[in-house]
Amino acid sequence: MTGDAFGRVLERCHAAAGRPGVAFAVVERDDGHIGVHDAAAYFSGRDEWPEPERRVCAGLAGRVLDVGCGAGRHAAVLAADGLDVVGVDTSPGAVAVARARGVDARAGSATALPGGVGTFDAVLLLGNNVGLLGSAATAPVVLAELARVTAPGGRLLLSGLDPFDTDDPEHLDYHGWNRERGRLPGQCRIRLRDGRLATEWFDYLFLSEPELRAVVDPSPWRATRWEREGHGYAVELTLVP
Amino acid sequence: MTGDAFGRVLERCHAAAGRPGVAFAVVERDDGHIGVHDAAAYFSGRDEWPEPERRVCAGLAGRVLDVGCGAGRHAAVLAADGLDVVGVDTSPGAVAVARARGVDARAGSATALPGGVGTFDAVLLLGNNVGLLGSAATAPVVLAELARVTAPGGRLLLSGLDPFDTDDPEHLDYHGWNRERGRLPGQCRIRLRDGRLATEWFDYLFLSEPELRAVVDPSPWRATRWEREGHGYAVELTLVP
Repeated sequence: MTGDAFGRVLERCHAAAGRPGVAFAVVERDDGHIGVHDAAAYFSGRDEWPEPERRVCAGLAGRVLDVGCGAGRHAAVLAADGLDVVGVDTSPGAVAVARARGVDARAGSATALPGGVGTFDAVLLLGNNVGLLGSAATAPVVLAELARVTAPGGRLLLSGLDPFDTDDPEHLDYHGWNRERGRLPGQCRIRLRDGRLATEWFDYLFLSEPELRAVVDPSPWRATRWEREGHGYAVELTLVP
Repeated sequence: MTGDAFGRVLERCHAAAGRPGVAFAVVERDDGHIGVHDAAAYFSGRDEWPEPERRVCAGLAGRVLDVGCGAGRHAAVLAADGLDVVGVDTSPGAVAVARARGVDARAGSATALPGGVGTFDAVLLLGNNVGLLGSAATAPVVLAELARVTAPGGRLLLSGLDPFDTDDPEHLDYHGWNRERGRLPGQCRIRLRDGRLATEWFDYLFLSEPELRAVVDPSPWRATRWEREGHGYAVELTLVP
């Protein structure tokens, strides 16, 4: 049954004050792979953000747009810092939870921003939301749309995981299947499931550093900072005036 | 891909010393319902067994057969008490983990016991393993087979959950669908999933107390003790000589 499985998981975890062991995001991939993540991770505080994310966020100021804000893991913290943060998420449940946690959250996505949202000094695709670039075909569209709402000289902060830093044969097989069908190896076609609910299928893109550089190169953005830890990274892009 | 998803989850949790938050049993039901349980529960000690299970196990002595022993949640504790415990499980991974935890575990099930297993003073279907009765059709077969390996006057201990003690519309709908197709309302057709592995589909039976009494009544067993807590119960059956 198609529905807001992700939002329902966040709402259940929020009702338990973000405690671990209560609500789980179940991610189904189109090769039948099932993964499980404790939803408490979506409620983690700044101390639990990966170190590269903390570093690229250190200098944030002004108006900030958090794309795919979820429960507000980043947006709620930055709003509490006094920044003027707008969050957008396609999940109605996520928007409700983020609002309850003090975020000015609205329904929307990177390619369907809410009307009249204005201009931002920084846009965030954190929590591995480089994934929302979607595919080689949609990434330029997303990067252009986010440039449209960014002030000259403004920043886009992204974080992600290198898909090739694995020896799991089920992931390596998936990369091979993606290559065969003309997709980037880390382009995961997934949906979230909870009880009888399942979201629509969507593409979530894992990119290595060279792949991300290749995607950014023809865009209006320039990479001005890379931070790395393990197979995770966070990147600061600056809008070329 | 059909395989021992359950065993792989137990092995991963065992490698993490049974710590919560590492490995999850993902249960898919044939109506598309997905549920998640932390596998750490399969490694819990006696203090974490439900109170009704502790009560019915208090007087155990002699040779004990644990059917569907999993990681040995009950069998390892009773073996450490000095009882002569044999565990059986259809999952090779479960058998491996239970053996590593000190259980004489072997491949098998209630209806396909290992050869030459001998006679027992008590047989266990705990951890909600009343579910292994399977269906109204298979329950008499299981009860007869377990009677065959039980000494006269021996016991069968079962625990389960009342399927009707819920207001979850997804479970209530499933009961209705089961009635329509001539199954007991709590007869869940499920499989376990982990990564790209999925077990075969199998029936796991949730029974209310009246339903369980109706199943036991024509069998060689008589109910001699009921212990209840919340919507859970544990039952002691005694083999009629």
